[in-house]
Amino acid sequence: MSDPESGAGVPRSYAEAGVDIEAGERAVALMRPAISAAMGEGVISRLGAFGAAVRSPGSQELLVSSADGVGTKVCLVRTDEEAAGVGRDLVHHCINDILTCGARPLFFLDYLAFAKLEPRRAAALVAGMSAACAATGCALVGGETAEMPDVYREGAFDVAGFMVGTVRAGRFLDGSRIRVGDTLIGLPSAGLHTNGFSLARRLLDPRLDEPCGDTNVRGALLAEHRCYLPDLAPLLERGLVRGLAHITGGGLPGNLPRMLPDGLAARLEPDRWPLPPIFALLSSFGLARDELYRAFNMGIGMVLACDPADAAAILAELPAAYRIGRVIEQGGGKRMVGLE
Amino acid sequence: MSDPESGAGVPRSYAEAGVDIEAGERAVALMRPAISAAMGEGVISRLGAFGAAVRSPGSQELLVSSADGVGTKVCLVRTDEEAAGVGRDLVHHCINDILTCGARPLFFLDYLAFAKLEPRRAAALVAGMSAACAATGCALVGGETAEMPDVYREGAFDVAGFMVGTVRAGRFLDGSRIRVGDTLIGLPSAGLHTNGFSLARRLLDPRLDEPCGDTNVRGALLAEHRCYLPDLAPLLERGLVRGLAHITGGGLPGNLPRMLPDGLAARLEPDRWPLPPIFALLSSFGLARDELYRAFNMGIGMVLACDPADAAAILAELPAAYRIGRVIEQGGGKRMVGLE
Repeated sequence: MSDPESGAGVPRSYAEAGVDIEAGERAVALMRPAISAAMGEGVISRLGAFGAAVRSPGSQELLVSSADGVGTKVCLVRTDEEAAGVGRDLVHHCINDILTCGARPLFFLDYLAFAKLEPRRAAALVAGMSAACAATGCALVGGETAEMPDVYREGAFDVAGFMVGTVRAGRFLDGSRIRVGDTLIGLPSAGLHTNGFSLARRLLDPRLDEPCGDTNVRGALLAEHRCYLPDLAPLLERGLVRGLAHITGGGLPGNLPRMLPDGLAARLEPDRWPLPPIFALLSSFGLARDELYRAFNMGIGMVLACDPADAAAILAELPAAYRIGRVIEQGGGKRMVGLE
Repeated sequence: MSDPESGAGVPRSYAEAGVDIEAGERAVALMRPAISAAMGEGVISRLGAFGAAVRSPGSQELLVSSADGVGTKVCLVRTDEEAAGVGRDLVHHCINDILTCGARPLFFLDYLAFAKLEPRRAAALVAGMSAACAATGCALVGGETAEMPDVYREGAFDVAGFMVGTVRAGRFLDGSRIRVGDTLIGLPSAGLHTNGFSLARRLLDPRLDEPCGDTNVRGALLAEHRCYLPDLAPLLERGLVRGLAHITGGGLPGNLPRMLPDGLAARLEPDRWPLPPIFALLSSFGLARDELYRAFNMGIGMVLACDPADAAAILAELPAAYRIGRVIEQGGGKRMVGLE
């Protein structure tokens, strides 16, 4: 068999060109139980069909969608359980994104691509996605798995997810309810979630086995992207949430302003929440403060804006959350202040 | 600046770790005109929001979704125009997939990932997607762009697309209308579309500049994935289509059976359609016939099943199409026969 990497020799089959159709079929067979488990009632499609069909939620609803990846967190994956963790990360990332619009998950599709397709690894990723979908009533309706030896580095893979959710038009969060003086409440992250890994891995690669909080550095880096749906759904239901910002790539300065209407800014008080051990460690390398806060979530995974009159009631429901700042009138072109 | 590939030296910033947030911002700025052009009436979301919102089509409709990539066709891309072509390929692939359920496109999201983010290349990909979306009334509502130097090979990138479409429940194609004796009509492909590139590139890499039909081998390989929506929408509207199979990875033997109900098979007559020059060339390397037909579409991009009484009327509307076979009762466990 010719070496697919060398280009030497003419392949006599697709497998000799580095694409193993049988591995693809094994992967699909291994994924099947996980997919069936997260099908749900509204799903009409047959396995093997070209498109997946679900019942539309009705014309008084909005469909809210998001596409996401998990960055180079994939490079830390060694075991099937860690692959499943990255699958859950991806679904949670998508759920949190549509949640910022007030939406609940309806269905999810994935895209997996490998240098060399490993059916067990692919099935573990999908099992993680399936479990995270099932836990929130979301249907995992389909996906695509590709083997692309010339695009991905040896042993590498990537995952992308696509989620569609639904929200009643009158409950859609678009920032227009946010007012000057609103309280900003920060929900703690579990760690880096799915951002900043290219930098964090380079800083911490030689120290993965060192202790970090109640785990080691590797464990802290792999901590699962928290899903904020269970905490926030009851507050959304009661109409207590005026805006939400999911703290992903770009950190607090890059994401907090995304929920604000024009003319408003967010003033943060970073000493209002504790810095989890992994972020304290990442802060020890001499990076500029702005660089740190743009690369990492620094302990806050989601920010909620509310009427100051509701803040105490919300904090009573979210005992782990912190009052981290407030909404101010925009001054001097900045949209997030407090880190200077 | 430390070399992000070597791991030597401690990065002092995200950029030194190989992730250029400013390049990301430039890419988004360059994409903006293309995205706005394909927004559409039903789209409610603001640019910069975490999720994209569109009006739901109503509860008598089904939402049909698909996730796709374009395989290693991306490895052939050299110019911005070629990148735009791959963007169109991706959208057409998704449109054809949901079309097999009778659905028309509603909205689309993309995932782009690069070893090193090239803002112009990213914008060209999105411009191609945007143009293909706009041409079919589909809204390009969002996406994700990632820079992952440790996952992708130097200079490499990948694209994935997610499409949601809509079809009235009574018009949903699920194969149940297909009968023994139905005529199979093949719609010509423009070339490989988006499958078989890892094999084709290895076979043809030294011959890319040789003539092939009215172009050269490279041009023939990059020929755009045909969009079958304009041809098929009027036939779907008239209820003349009993089933559709999009011929992608796995070729005719892998995809034709996917539209059939249990107990039926497809008998093809491969001499009923001409082999385009690129497939004649690919056939000249001594690959087994079954290998060829599984790796490549061999000139047929979509197969339609219809009542034999309607075949002449359909062929009159589709002058480039061929009568390529018929539906038979399943014998001996095979689901596609005629290539032996």
